[in-house]
Amino acid sequence: MSGDACLIFSASSHPISSFAQSEMFSKIILGYDAWCGVAHGCSRKLGMKICGFLQKNNNLEEKIRSSKDLLDNSDRDSRFRRTETDFSNLFARDLLPAKNGEEPTMQFLLEVVDILTNYVRKTFDRSTKVLDFHHPHQLLEGMEGFNLELSDQPESLEQILVDCRDTLKYGVRTGHPRFFNQLSTGLDIIGLSGEWLTSTANTNMFTYEIAPVFVLMEQLTLKKMREIIGWPDGEGDGIFSPGGAISNMYSVMIARYKFFPEVKTKGMTAAPRLVLFTSEHVSLLSQKQYCITKTTSYCYLFHYSIKKASAALGFGTENLILLSTDERGRVIPADLEAKVIDAKARGCVPMFVNATAGSTVYGAFDPIHELADICEKYNMWLHVDGAWGGGLLMSRKHRHKLCGVERANSVTWNPHKMMGVPLQCSAILVRERGVLSGCNSMCAGYLFQPDKQYDVSYDTGDKAIQCGRHVDIFKFWLMWKAKGTIGFEQHIDKCLDLSHYLYTKIKGREGYQMVFDGEPQHTNVCFWYLPPGIRDMPDGQEKREKLHKVAPKIKALMMESGTTMVGYQPQGDKVNFFRMVISNPAATRSDIDFLTDEIERLGQDL
Amino acid sequence: MSGDACLIFSASSHPISSFAQSEMFSKIILGYDAWCGVAHGCSRKLGMKICGFLQKNNNLEEKIRSSKDLLDNSDRDSRFRRTETDFSNLFARDLLPAKNGEEPTMQFLLEVVDILTNYVRKTFDRSTKVLDFHHPHQLLEGMEGFNLELSDQPESLEQILVDCRDTLKYGVRTGHPRFFNQLSTGLDIIGLSGEWLTSTANTNMFTYEIAPVFVLMEQLTLKKMREIIGWPDGEGDGIFSPGGAISNMYSVMIARYKFFPEVKTKGMTAAPRLVLFTSEHVSLLSQKQYCITKTTSYCYLFHYSIKKASAALGFGTENLILLSTDERGRVIPADLEAKVIDAKARGCVPMFVNATAGSTVYGAFDPIHELADICEKYNMWLHVDGAWGGGLLMSRKHRHKLCGVERANSVTWNPHKMMGVPLQCSAILVRERGVLSGCNSMCAGYLFQPDKQYDVSYDTGDKAIQCGRHVDIFKFWLMWKAKGTIGFEQHIDKCLDLSHYLYTKIKGREGYQMVFDGEPQHTNVCFWYLPPGIRDMPDGQEKREKLHKVAPKIKALMMESGTTMVGYQPQGDKVNFFRMVISNPAATRSDIDFLTDEIERLGQDL
Repeated sequence: MSGDACLIFSASSHPISSFAQSEMFSKIILGYDAWCGVAHGCSRKLGMKICGFLQKNNNLEEKIRSSKDLLDNSDRDSRFRRTETDFSNLFARDLLPAKNGEEPTMQFLLEVVDILTNYVRKTFDRSTKVLDFHHPHQLLEGMEGFNLELSDQPESLEQILVDCRDTLKYGVRTGHPRFFNQLSTGLDIIGLSGEWLTSTANTNMFTYEIAPVFVLMEQLTLKKMREIIGWPDGEGDGIFSPGGAISNMYSVMIARYKFFPEVKTKGMTAAPRLVLFTSEHVSLLSQKQYCITKTTSYCYLFHYSIKKASAALGFGTENLILLSTDERGRVIPADLEAKVIDAKARGCVPMFVNATAGSTVYGAFDPIHELADICEKYNMWLHVDGAWGGGLLMSRKHRHKLCGVERANSVTWNPHKMMGVPLQCSAILVRERGVLSGCNSMCAGYLFQPDKQYDVSYDTGDKAIQCGRHVDIFKFWLMWKAKGTIGFEQHIDKCLDLSHYLYTKIKGREGYQMVFDGEPQHTNVCFWYLPPGIRDMPDGQEKREKLHKVAPKIKALMMESGTTMVGYQPQGDKVNFFRMVISNPAATRSDIDFLTDEIERLGQDL
Repeated sequence: MSGDACLIFSASSHPISSFAQSEMFSKIILGYDAWCGVAHGCSRKLGMKICGFLQKNNNLEEKIRSSKDLLDNSDRDSRFRRTETDFSNLFARDLLPAKNGEEPTMQFLLEVVDILTNYVRKTFDRSTKVLDFHHPHQLLEGMEGFNLELSDQPESLEQILVDCRDTLKYGVRTGHPRFFNQLSTGLDIIGLSGEWLTSTANTNMFTYEIAPVFVLMEQLTLKKMREIIGWPDGEGDGIFSPGGAISNMYSVMIARYKFFPEVKTKGMTAAPRLVLFTSEHVSLLSQKQYCITKTTSYCYLFHYSIKKASAALGFGTENLILLSTDERGRVIPADLEAKVIDAKARGCVPMFVNATAGSTVYGAFDPIHELADICEKYNMWLHVDGAWGGGLLMSRKHRHKLCGVERANSVTWNPHKMMGVPLQCSAILVRERGVLSGCNSMCAGYLFQPDKQYDVSYDTGDKAIQCGRHVDIFKFWLMWKAKGTIGFEQHIDKCLDLSHYLYTKIKGREGYQMVFDGEPQHTNVCFWYLPPGIRDMPDGQEKREKLHKVAPKIKALMMESGTTMVGYQPQGDKVNFFRMVISNPAATRSDIDFLTDEIERLGQDL
């Protein structure tokens, strides 16, 4: 199928040592045929695969036939036919659990693995493109045999393998050393293995009964995370959810349950008018800002989570109050207190404060201690959204940026961002035990389940808002085992070192301008690139308008050339700028250099 | 690592055809050494793997050394040492992106694949146990080298491979032909391959920019599903969510937005008192019921979703009104109308009706047409929760059970249940275009994004409640390609045939009693098994109490023996009964026979 790789498998139950003494082994001297024979002796599948592969590669068989001096032809032909895997005549119905399905199943899975391991290898090869961009209409029209339409009749497994290859071909290599577009980047091999295993186990976190090992891994890992946060003895509760937005939604629900438990049964009308607070840096451009910049960008959407939660949970987005930030994007505590006092004066009840630990664009860390003081004073729930910044807790050098996090009532922490765990892997952690279950349980507390033979306190279903829940823990647990806490620390320190390298490189360099002054707190480096034609223009609206178009143009050229990817967006009254983030373990200084070179190359003539 | 399988890989970039003419090829006549030579010629890794494998298996090397007549020993030793993969001295840090990491990466991934393919093979082998049950405290204490605790220092890759094996060993084989415990069972090989690829691609459904192919696949698949539902031209909207509970939550949010859009900004206080309706069969045991049965069971929790949504979204669970059902578990339409009238009389606004298509316990299908008539009459949103039953739409023989589904305003449909797609894969489908986006978008409608180079209407992020969103579509799309619509139909028809077989087998058989009369609508077959000691007892409380304990006891014995798994629960005033469900493509009549034999064997002396 793929001309540059062969994958050979044996699932034989005969130890090779006994085979080695067998009659087959003695045939080795017969040359190529014997090689197939060895394969056959070791396992029929091994031979089958070799032969199938050979047939697909330029009719090697014919070349072998002509080498009469090397070969003993006895019964090779029949073995050849018997052992070839021709996927063009095989279908999904021929795989397990079909009768005799084991052999084609193993062959098919290994062909898939061949495709995937090739993809993995190439992902780390800098000579490979990050993406091969096509417009939606191009992919929808069909690309050389890659047809997305679904049909009534089955396709052959050969076509399925082609579809797998094409899916990867037209996708984006998020693990490529030069992919910097998202907060989640990289392709961790241990995490990948963990996901493969998780898919193979294909179970559900709902009960200990059907996910005993995974449920315990989740429990232990959450406890470890709470210890790292600094809650005494790692006490508390938590759960893995399908992403940061849902983790943040949990935090708002739990806070509401803590202060107004009757809302669960009676609805929001049972509570006074509740207000929530979060940074203006995690929210939508206002209409006024829109009028200035004439655009918005998707990056903003990433941190709508508290706003989305306000809408979904019945608070209303107008009851989410945005807090002013300093020039570095950090919430100003005095602004929180002023707005709390104002809300109370208007008859509202301030209930929930979200402190962002690592904002999406600037990578800013809100001052948690000062916000915690105000929360305590006014009896509000303090949530720390560490979806992006939580990973820094693993680093002795950088964890001070979350100083005070131990005072939070709840914390969102996405290992799938800064810690390089494959998506999805997000935890919501809660300091007080019982409120998570109390909030979501639909079993009255007095009910018990005496008829299961194990301790059902391990069942997690009733504290989740989900019923079926994907196993997100295993890949993370496995990575932690494989790297150790120090491995995560090294990864984080390295990424922050790289962003420091970028910052020092471009600060003051001709053609670059930083969006805010001073060393970034996280790996976010925000900057404008000014092409030569713009540099010397006088400040003013015309320059702003021109500059606003630069990042989008460079980005479009980047995607078309497929060499690297980095995000951009406006922020407040600042026109479009590049937001570089580094979470990719494959990135090196040379990739940072490549990025700036590429920006300069593509932006030269704009 | 595992003695009964060898896995051989070549990632060489040399086509084997050119290798065949090479010097290496001529060495084949040299026998075993040449075999390694061939391997080496084809790829160094191939040889490495063979040789590594050989060394681990009873010192074949020594046996070969003694076969002087077969072997030419020149430079074999050095090749041997060079090519062995000793994972005990390798760590995660040695894998890609590490320098020279490609070789250990490929070797490690292939060892993992070896573990996984062995697991797959054994899963379909009926001589393998479904599970090897251990209590939480046993696993937490550590089982022979399987230690769940996380540490600061990294473990070797050898230990990581052991951990992978042990994780599977102590887990539950949900794909085993005799696993009937959940609505999601089975291990589809194409779906599995799809998940492996998804993990390798490791991207996010948020934007077309980073998931071009997957975003289009989702769009096309959702359209196809809407066509199958029967919405004209497949028009409408939808999204894949992390499970049925969240899909159902979407439906309630969208309905609220449709009728009371101001709730999004102003909160629930902007709306009148809204009430929702759903079947009593999807809800919690009442306290009264609890007093009768003295227990509840986890199975109930599976369909708390509308109740959980009522609590989360600020309606309050008291404003969820439960509808009476007939003896088969189907909602009685007249009861809905009576309760709507009553609610209106109390000043409430009936807003949302959930019709269940395939209830969790009885597999009941509510009469959609009659409920739709009432919804139209009273201007209520009709949602069809087809999480479990939606798959029957793929069957010409059984889709009539969802007759009227085309009149629904929204539909939940979980391919991860009846269609055998790996967990998680759940769709929320909406008939009216625009309300899903309107409900969840945090971008004002007048905003546009002129600075991206592609059509951003393909970006899905703003209509989701999530930010990062896992790629759930690919495995489903790939299975559809591989099976065709008819393949899903065959699977569904087969499962229903099997449940018919079970039903006719045990109906009227001594020791069995059906929980409800008549042929089940879905694959749910609910029955009591009465051990001989109970059969002849007079009806009454003592018999009920004894019978109530039978299913839990049999289930516990089943789990301890590990032979099969099936669920049980009480329902209303009915004491614990078995709920058999069949969604497993590997199950056959012999497995059904095995289950009843096992129930009888384990229950004989109770």
